[in-house]
Amino acid sequence: MDSIIWDGQQLKLLDQTLLPQRIAYIACDDYQTVAEAIRRLSVRGAPAIGAAAAYGLYVGASKIKATGLDDFQHKLAAIAGELADTRPTAVNLRWALDRMMMRVSTLNQPDIPAMLQTLLDEAQAIFDEDVNSNRQMGAFGQQLVPPGARILTHCNAGALATAGYGTALGVIRAAQAKGKQVSVYADETRPLLQGARLTAWEMVQENIPVTLITDNMAGYLMAQGKVDLVIVGADRITANGDVANKIGTYGVAVLAAHHQVPFYVAAPLSTIDLKLPSGDQIPIEQRDYREVTHLAGQPLAPEGVKVWNPAFDVTPHALVKGIITERGIVFPPYQKNLAEICGKEAKEEK
Amino acid sequence: MDSIIWDGQQLKLLDQTLLPQRIAYIACDDYQTVAEAIRRLSVRGAPAIGAAAAYGLYVGASKIKATGLDDFQHKLAAIAGELADTRPTAVNLRWALDRMMMRVSTLNQPDIPAMLQTLLDEAQAIFDEDVNSNRQMGAFGQQLVPPGARILTHCNAGALATAGYGTALGVIRAAQAKGKQVSVYADETRPLLQGARLTAWEMVQENIPVTLITDNMAGYLMAQGKVDLVIVGADRITANGDVANKIGTYGVAVLAAHHQVPFYVAAPLSTIDLKLPSGDQIPIEQRDYREVTHLAGQPLAPEGVKVWNPAFDVTPHALVKGIITERGIVFPPYQKNLAEICGKEAKEEK
Repeated sequence: MDSIIWDGQQLKLLDQTLLPQRIAYIACDDYQTVAEAIRRLSVRGAPAIGAAAAYGLYVGASKIKATGLDDFQHKLAAIAGELADTRPTAVNLRWALDRMMMRVSTLNQPDIPAMLQTLLDEAQAIFDEDVNSNRQMGAFGQQLVPPGARILTHCNAGALATAGYGTALGVIRAAQAKGKQVSVYADETRPLLQGARLTAWEMVQENIPVTLITDNMAGYLMAQGKVDLVIVGADRITANGDVANKIGTYGVAVLAAHHQVPFYVAAPLSTIDLKLPSGDQIPIEQRDYREVTHLAGQPLAPEGVKVWNPAFDVTPHALVKGIITERGIVFPPYQKNLAEICGKEAKEEK
Repeated sequence: MDSIIWDGQQLKLLDQTLLPQRIAYIACDDYQTVAEAIRRLSVRGAPAIGAAAAYGLYVGASKIKATGLDDFQHKLAAIAGELADTRPTAVNLRWALDRMMMRVSTLNQPDIPAMLQTLLDEAQAIFDEDVNSNRQMGAFGQQLVPPGARILTHCNAGALATAGYGTALGVIRAAQAKGKQVSVYADETRPLLQGARLTAWEMVQENIPVTLITDNMAGYLMAQGKVDLVIVGADRITANGDVANKIGTYGVAVLAAHHQVPFYVAAPLSTIDLKLPSGDQIPIEQRDYREVTHLAGQPLAPEGVKVWNPAFDVTPHALVKGIITERGIVFPPYQKNLAEICGKEAKEEK
């Protein structure tokens, strides 16, 4: 199941809010539809948002009615700004849009048709590189997975959260492909149930044994010795190794430390934000209270109750045993080792 | 809102599965209806289950068609057994039924009318004592609550979980009554959302400021310094001070310890089971997988996913700062101090 499809003519985004009950794609003929799909989490997961926004910028660019090159560039920058503002926490969104804008701004002989072609090529490159990155993360990360491992994951860092294959779930897929007979515990991940709806669904489809739990069962599960390691994705990793990820990740990390269960993060380099020194500087998105008080339009709580609904939390680097990237696994000290791996010329880029 | 009403003729149990959307009582004209109400959590919360079962035993007794005293006693014991088997974890259920059976078995001049009257009187005594116990727990427990405290609670240990007033929420009510201006964070408490549906509702009704969070937000909330103390109820406390309570309580206790937030348990002495040395001997109820995969009949997860659904977990005594009872607050060492407080003649019993 592809979360993002460019069919040569049209961008189609899988509406993940309907999964697993319904499979439906949103046809995106303008960038506003892409922006709205990101805002309402029809497309979600840091790498998938980046790739969708890249295509969205091309879709927007292709519809610009410009009086000339300057006007085109001006309007293009406005669209990029609007797309970047859809969600604040995941850095891949801005990374992808910055990369797109950089490419068109450094064209030798800029004209509108060349710019459009460049935007499309670059969006496709971002998409393709993400799939490749995930496969490489899988290859590195599976080395951390013992045979028969029971792996707890939170939210969905799978094929659906990326251009394909997945970050955390990519590592699990790679371990399974190596014949390691792993099994998965999926936190359901309230409020939007990405674990129940998406991770459980991906694992069932792959025939990887999966057991669904509510988020508040993770501690007792670990206390019973049923978890060998934790792998999660990330929305932003700062220079010191602090990790912003789906709300609840921090709690899982504290529980893992308490039970001496290793806690790993799998994320592409595009998730690493060396410009931010530490996690307390990451903007944390607060979302609508109705995500907590309602489910499928049905009220779960009394009228008028106040709600706190941060979409993400920050896990301090001290709780993270290793960060799995497409260039290898980064271990502490993160300050030094993250800077190094981000600077390193990747083999595939030579 | 009373969870249990004996109107002199009929037992009525508030159907808590419908709250807060609908207020409806289940008229219990036979003990099977009471047993079913306990099994399906229409009445829930350890002290409330105890009181409901006590009345249920009287309702069952009043319908016995007996050939004589022996036959009556035999049938009564069978009903008590059926009621006791409805749920395995909370010890108050068995405690209440044992107490009822003890009273009728020690009557001086037993005959069926005298036994029926004794059963009704004893059920009413259990009910009345629970309300009084809660008020005394409140009076003791509120001493632990600093002015302006922000209190996190899990599940519902309120008026609805008891004969009235509540254990954990009773302490909060008492602190509020003392003018301490407390506020409450309520974990929604998946899968059955007793926090969202019941605790939030009770607090809104009392005008105590309450903020609802999903269970997986508790860690990040503590990391932000927004929780001053945690108070929860209990379903069974063993001789060493280990506490069985709603699934997720253990995770909250680990998080509280990590953030140096004091973690208190409020429970009547009827919840303390000195016969069990430690928490690993408490039977933990596993409930239907559909509680996790479905909500209001609506599927949340893919067909065929495996589910782990323990209704309770066990918090080791080392994570518990104090246990608030109707005879005072018990601090470590629990082995000694719990035995002492259970043995002590209570003032109100003189």
